[in-house]
Amino acid sequence: MVDTLWVLMTAFLVFWMNAGFGCVESGLCRAKNTTNILAKNFVVFAFSAIAYWIVGFAIMFGDGNSFMGLAGWLVGGADNSPAIGDTYQGVYSSLNWTGVPLLAKFFFQLVFAGTAATIVSGCVAERIHYKSFMVFTLILVGLSYPITGHWIWGGGWLAAMGMRDFAGSTVVHAVGGWSGLAGILVLGPRIGKYKSDGTVQTIPGHSMALVFLGGLILWLGWFGFNPGSTMAADPGAIAHVAMTTNLACCAAIISSTLMAWILLGKPDFSMTVNGALAGLVAITAPCAYVSIMSSAIIGLIAGLIVVLAVIFFDKRKIDDPVGALSVHLVNGMWGTIAVGLFATADAPGGGADGLFNGGGIGSLTAQLVGTFAVGAFAFGVAFIAWSIIKAILGMRVDPEDEMRGLDHSEMGMEAYPVDLTAE
Amino acid sequence: MVDTLWVLMTAFLVFWMNAGFGCVESGLCRAKNTTNILAKNFVVFAFSAIAYWIVGFAIMFGDGNSFMGLAGWLVGGADNSPAIGDTYQGVYSSLNWTGVPLLAKFFFQLVFAGTAATIVSGCVAERIHYKSFMVFTLILVGLSYPITGHWIWGGGWLAAMGMRDFAGSTVVHAVGGWSGLAGILVLGPRIGKYKSDGTVQTIPGHSMALVFLGGLILWLGWFGFNPGSTMAADPGAIAHVAMTTNLACCAAIISSTLMAWILLGKPDFSMTVNGALAGLVAITAPCAYVSIMSSAIIGLIAGLIVVLAVIFFDKRKIDDPVGALSVHLVNGMWGTIAVGLFATADAPGGGADGLFNGGGIGSLTAQLVGTFAVGAFAFGVAFIAWSIIKAILGMRVDPEDEMRGLDHSEMGMEAYPVDLTAE
Amino acid sequence: MVDTLWVLMTAFLVFWMNAGFGCVESGLCRAKNTTNILAKNFVVFAFSAIAYWIVGFAIMFGDGNSFMGLAGWLVGGADNSPAIGDTYQGVYSSLNWTGVPLLAKFFFQLVFAGTAATIVSGCVAERIHYKSFMVFTLILVGLSYPITGHWIWGGGWLAAMGMRDFAGSTVVHAVGGWSGLAGILVLGPRIGKYKSDGTVQTIPGHSMALVFLGGLILWLGWFGFNPGSTMAADPGAIAHVAMTTNLACCAAIISSTLMAWILLGKPDFSMTVNGALAGLVAITAPCAYVSIMSSAIIGLIAGLIVVLAVIFFDKRKIDDPVGALSVHLVNGMWGTIAVGLFATADAPGGGADGLFNGGGIGSLTAQLVGTFAVGAFAFGVAFIAWSIIKAILGMRVDPEDEMRGLDHSEMGMEAYPVDLTAE
Repeated sequence: MVDTLWVLMTAFLVFWMNAGFGCVESGLCRAKNTTNILAKNFVVFAFSAIAYWIVGFAIMFGDGNSFMGLAGWLVGGADNSPAIGDTYQGVYSSLNWTGVPLLAKFFFQLVFAGTAATIVSGCVAERIHYKSFMVFTLILVGLSYPITGHWIWGGGWLAAMGMRDFAGSTVVHAVGGWSGLAGILVLGPRIGKYKSDGTVQTIPGHSMALVFLGGLILWLGWFGFNPGSTMAADPGAIAHVAMTTNLACCAAIISSTLMAWILLGKPDFSMTVNGALAGLVAITAPCAYVSIMSSAIIGLIAGLIVVLAVIFFDKRKIDDPVGALSVHLVNGMWGTIAVGLFATADAPGGGADGLFNGGGIGSLTAQLVGTFAVGAFAFGVAFIAWSIIKAILGMRVDPEDEMRGLDHSEMGMEAYPVDLTAE
Repeated sequence: MVDTLWVLMTAFLVFWMNAGFGCVESGLCRAKNTTNILAKNFVVFAFSAIAYWIVGFAIMFGDGNSFMGLAGWLVGGADNSPAIGDTYQGVYSSLNWTGVPLLAKFFFQLVFAGTAATIVSGCVAERIHYKSFMVFTLILVGLSYPITGHWIWGGGWLAAMGMRDFAGSTVVHAVGGWSGLAGILVLGPRIGKYKSDGTVQTIPGHSMALVFLGGLILWLGWFGFNPGSTMAADPGAIAHVAMTTNLACCAAIISSTLMAWILLGKPDFSMTVNGALAGLVAITAPCAYVSIMSSAIIGLIAGLIVVLAVIFFDKRKIDDPVGALSVHLVNGMWGTIAVGLFATADAPGGGADGLFNGGGIGSLTAQLVGTFAVGAFAFGVAFIAWSIIKAILGMRVDPEDEMRGLDHSEMGMEAYPVDLTAE
Repeated sequence: MVDTLWVLMTAFLVFWMNAGFGCVESGLCRAKNTTNILAKNFVVFAFSAIAYWIVGFAIMFGDGNSFMGLAGWLVGGADNSPAIGDTYQGVYSSLNWTGVPLLAKFFFQLVFAGTAATIVSGCVAERIHYKSFMVFTLILVGLSYPITGHWIWGGGWLAAMGMRDFAGSTVVHAVGGWSGLAGILVLGPRIGKYKSDGTVQTIPGHSMALVFLGGLILWLGWFGFNPGSTMAADPGAIAHVAMTTNLACCAAIISSTLMAWILLGKPDFSMTVNGALAGLVAITAPCAYVSIMSSAIIGLIAGLIVVLAVIFFDKRKIDDPVGALSVHLVNGMWGTIAVGLFATADAPGGGADGLFNGGGIGSLTAQLVGTFAVGAFAFGVAFIAWSIIKAILGMRVDPEDEMRGLDHSEMGMEAYPVDLTAE
């Protein structure tokens, strides 16, 4: 009873992250594309829900083989949870460890799938066709995300190998990041971002108020994301995870702010917010497995990484308007690897899985193999999917539409029209 | 213990919908009326709380007759909940099925009453006197809303007839909508909305960012609205209701977006958000009584209805600035009727009430009678109330004040003043 | 299990208040300082978390003497909570009454400490150096706040004397207010606020939408702040506290709105929002100890006080850009004193502590001594701290930077840049 309540309340918090992603992304982009960005972030969860309901959840958690699940379509498979004094009987064996009703399991997993999809939105912002993004969402949430998710959380081959990703640094964030990277490469940079003389043009976002609000919404949502991933109201574990999650975020805020201050001369506020998100992404995999002091160190490093990564991607002319790659992809990898470096059996979640680095569970090797295998698959599928979408539907808006803004050409509606004086 | 926690946490989510209504309404209206709209949405809950505390709750849930409650004023009547091994002893018999403390029952019901009042705000936006809206709120929440609420939730004549409205498609949304429709008819359309040559002038809202944020706040709040209406932490029921609520919303987003795209030529973002709200309103009555597949169908239809309803009201020159009638009134009716069409005894809430369409509980007849009886009463009382307010206080601001904006005349404060350069 | 869930969920709500403070403060200030204000409100929690983790929590709740705690640094002291059938064994004896894990206690207390720090931000807005605010936050949360907190909540001398402050009208709000007042006095008023001819220049805020949103976020957060301070899921107590908290807020909204309408000629929306916050601050100390009717009276008075206080501070040329002193300091004092006037043993929290005014617990004398002793200490430490910061780091930005806006000089980033037309 308490478990279901906890799982649903934390799922609501994670759902709320949709608002955060929309605010951060639109705030860091220009006013002329704002309606388009907000619309993408609003409908993405609807498309995710349909795709994950019909096929995604079955592929990810249904019984099948070590590559993918093959049972339980339409969340309609047999399931006897909450189990009453019996062994598990059903087709979602990989979720038999949590005693909440099947629909609560589904809903909780759905909000995670939606998060992966919304990460992509930031990468391809300010130049992609609305319809092309929608189609990609269906492919990602219905097929690609569930397959790699199955490998780690669905009893697949990486789980068997001992890879551990508590709340999804790789399963959710890096997968979203790899999918977005493929989109960026197929789309190319925004007009004017990289000048012919080699200099990089900073394109400032239109509202720091939206960035602020979005950053705090995401931070709040992460208290659902990580502590909720216990999928049970175990007091010691959830208090520990809330603590490590918050401390990593706070440490990353301080390190990213100072790093930006030193490197760029000013305490760049967008770096502060991306620093917070970087710390949160990095602690997502190890939050239950590491000590409080380790969480501070993981966050501190995440805050440094994100600033360097933003500079790196710009040097490589990979145009990521909101820094989503630096936050979700790079720090998703860092967090996953950090499990192999910092996990201890003393932590609440660490004890459950046995000794970590000693016993090969969550070993650095397993974490590295998982990081790169998932990356290769997610990037590969996404690259193919984007290429097919480009060939059939088209991918990028016309240059004049990009210049004038997608709100005009794609949406037919400005975000901030001047008051119409009625007469 | 868990029940109280669930009821209060979900009540907090519903309370949060006040922010959502304020954001959506102000975002879909013009900047020059924004302070006025936000102020209405802020104070409406204060007036609702006072009116519902003193008289509303007693009329709705107090013991009395089949028309209205007549006991328990000031939430001060006898009550022995949470009951400990005894039969219920108190004057709020219609709420004896939930074991939480009386004040938790009151607070949960209060946030629903506040929702009905805030729906009205959208209908009368951009032309009503601030004070007139406040007075109407007191009448609605203190008298009209509780009476029709008593009929259905308070053990009144519609409950006896077998009408079922799980979380308030009729009790809350349609009642708010009917009250707003009466206000629109008494007020008339905004200046410039309907031209003398018969054409309709679109008056664009001033901030899609507020609309986006408001839409997601409301969607989040609905996870309190519907699952919380169990008023008990029954794992199976709340997981089911969370699932149907979300799926109806997602289906409605897709159908409303595509419908607008086809009919209007662009994927109108305000239609997307109103589609989401339409799906949520429609699933509010049947969420606990219908299958998952039915919830998708109910939502799909709601998304189509809302687009057609917006067009319909404009044709009839009924000026509803934010589409509140199309969302709350029309889809409140649709959702209530959908109980009669889709309810099954298999659903968690369906089983509790016995066989549905077979046993006459929630039958199509009962749902239709309830829909129209409540509509006639709510509209009638509201029309009389608005007319009296118009005669005594005045209803509509002067034309020059409407042109210049209510923020100037009514509030003395612009929403977005240009920075004052201190000197 | 339920207790931990309740404590964490309510802590998340209180954490969310950071967003509310940032929105209200930036909304009531000018666009040219918005990035700076938002950044302050974003990083303040990171600095608070580090300071409170390392030293603050130990000073506030660690075993020590009646002046301060001296054990349990880095939240690393011995603790056997949740206790299992034993007496308490550990160094945080003053928190032995709640059975949740130590990290849950810490996290809940941390979000309160962060609130005190963020109150200061509003007082010193639009003229302080970014770095100077950060340093002050470390001193406040690491040293000053925990010491006075120890006196009341940590088993110190005021607790022994019988002073009662349920959720922190004094511990959190007045302490934040006194610290901010010291900052205002050291900083001086903003350029242009008080003219040489003695008139007061109103400097309007740049976004009522942010004020609205922030006000509702804070109201929502208070449902964590007060009901969560039970730190246990006692159904009767939390329902009572939710009720008194909400009713005080609603009463204050009405009284502040009417008061502003009468005194200023218009229903000033910023007064309405500050009225809501005033009511919430005032009910924070007495929420568990007073009757429902008393809560309405306390709120009603708070709404009147806040309007008068805003006028008073302006007369004294104490430039408080957002009204934080009128809300947090003045009503923090009022709420603390109200315990001595209205507390009854019948209330859920009142019974736990024994008879109130009869038994000397929460007596008017104790409340008054606590109010002024804490005020003197908090103000004194803050004044010294600000003075040292001023001498070493500098406190106030250059006049030309203040005129141009802190976003330019301090942050290097405008909040709302005009779209860059790429070419």
